[in-house]
Amino acid sequence: MARIVVALGGNALGNTPKEQEEKVKIASESLINLIEDGNEVIIAHGNGPQVGMINLAFEEGSKTNEKIVEVELPECTAMSQGYIGYHLQKGIRNELNKRNKKMDSVTVITQVLVDKSDDAFKDPTKPIGGYYTKEYAEKLMIENKGVVYKEDSGRGYRRVVPSPKPVDIVEKNIILSMLENNYIVIACGGGGIPVIRDDYGNIEGIPAVIDKDFASSTLANSIDAEYLFILTAVDRVFINFNKENQKEIKDMSIRDAEKYCEEGQFAKGSMLPKVLAAIEFVKGGKNRKAIIASLEKAAEAIKGESGTIIHS
Amino acid sequence: MARIVVALGGNALGNTPKEQEEKVKIASESLINLIEDGNEVIIAHGNGPQVGMINLAFEEGSKTNEKIVEVELPECTAMSQGYIGYHLQKGIRNELNKRNKKMDSVTVITQVLVDKSDDAFKDPTKPIGGYYTKEYAEKLMIENKGVVYKEDSGRGYRRVVPSPKPVDIVEKNIILSMLENNYIVIACGGGGIPVIRDDYGNIEGIPAVIDKDFASSTLANSIDAEYLFILTAVDRVFINFNKENQKEIKDMSIRDAEKYCEEGQFAKGSMLPKVLAAIEFVKGGKNRKAIIASLEKAAEAIKGESGTIIHS
Repeated sequence: MARIVVALGGNALGNTPKEQEEKVKIASESLINLIEDGNEVIIAHGNGPQVGMINLAFEEGSKTNEKIVEVELPECTAMSQGYIGYHLQKGIRNELNKRNKKMDSVTVITQVLVDKSDDAFKDPTKPIGGYYTKEYAEKLMIENKGVVYKEDSGRGYRRVVPSPKPVDIVEKNIILSMLENNYIVIACGGGGIPVIRDDYGNIEGIPAVIDKDFASSTLANSIDAEYLFILTAVDRVFINFNKENQKEIKDMSIRDAEKYCEEGQFAKGSMLPKVLAAIEFVKGGKNRKAIIASLEKAAEAIKGESGTIIHS
Repeated sequence: MARIVVALGGNALGNTPKEQEEKVKIASESLINLIEDGNEVIIAHGNGPQVGMINLAFEEGSKTNEKIVEVELPECTAMSQGYIGYHLQKGIRNELNKRNKKMDSVTVITQVLVDKSDDAFKDPTKPIGGYYTKEYAEKLMIENKGVVYKEDSGRGYRRVVPSPKPVDIVEKNIILSMLENNYIVIACGGGGIPVIRDDYGNIEGIPAVIDKDFASSTLANSIDAEYLFILTAVDRVFINFNKENQKEIKDMSIRDAEKYCEEGQFAKGSMLPKVLAAIEFVKGGKNRKAIIASLEKAAEAIKGESGTIIHS
């Protein structure tokens, strides 16, 4: 039996609650296949489109209705964990019921510790919320100290937040307890709620976004998983993507993977963080493997019939 | 050591994230006092103002921005569980840290089963969302089959949803596991995400609201708690409230409590559901006590120095 952390992409979960329920059905089948093959599964997931919509709803709503206030990112991420976790929990429960399998799934609201001296805080890069004119963005920056707006690909000014690296999973012991009790755990949604720790050991939420692939790698590392599955829209990693000499990669050593990263083979904000998170996980312990594969072919990927395996 | 389910009022948690963080600090102190006195604590909470704002944000936001869709109540409740659970988890962790106490707290996203043949579905009564004109409400009812709008105290038409009685806590075994592992569990937020079960055993979310006091009573019953604490804004239950012969009640038998309910002593939608939930819990087993008290005086209430005790 292998312990597997499965990282589901937020984009793979659709853009509306209805779409999400449909996508979760497919994901649940795939995840229960892994479990029926004798594995222990922990599910992490992204929340890009979901937290974007939640954040935007409060931003927009507060302009027209005084009962609505703007809600900061840690709280929006917590909401997305509840929302996506509920759908996954329900989808998995119904799939287990269909197969007459006596197991259960639980969502753990997860805080992820980041370092307050992380360089990311000096240069916020992750855009969130609506688009504004330069003048309005400047006004907002004066009104809200510490909030940064930047021009976004010619479409206007948008708020940007830092994307610090995850340092530790605050709820890791809880997640381990749940695994020992044979539950299918859903954790670290949206990369986790980013918190920092002060000199007295108290934690505080901060407006930032943690990359879900790095958070999944940190989670997999801290619970000593054997596999990190990063599930995405494509079946395998490619090099020379969209060029004549495009090539599917079935497996690569971390040395190869690092070389490809240096060559600029992988798109920033897309395949690159997945490969980097995979490398980080494999490097962190013995006998570890990371797999980048499509959601639908997760069970095939663990047998080497699909996906890209990253090994030491 | 007594097992105590503490039901926190959603109104007691404030109307904005900032207010909520402040209120949660006070609540955390009170809850850890109970734990330091040797009790096991499970926290349930309301979400009236919170889920109201979440629901309204998507409703309002979707009118002005096409990236925002309306989000149904089960999903909004799940979001409120994530949001309030995160604040409680963080507040409790920081209070434990202050006292150098090695414990931890976990939020369980909780689905609560209701009966699809519950009479409440025939007569939806719980208002949610914005106010509309009669004409607009009628248009909305034609466009969205099954959705009901009713006139609300002269302020316009508002959507009403059913408030069915809770039947079972879907995640009760998970909650019990967490308690066995010595965690402070936060569960059943907002009365739980209402789900129904079909003939094949599959569960499905439904647009409804479960009263948090009844859900807390069902939770306390299903995990065989000794105490149900319903914490609210007042120190004690009153009879003849706001009249010349107003009287504070320090303790009452379920027989007395039922008599007062019949006399119409308690306000519908406010003290009445609390007293009814208390009666239901006490009746459900031996040696059970329910306490209605203020959040600040919870630790005094268990010693009989504040609050109203309801006993068999």
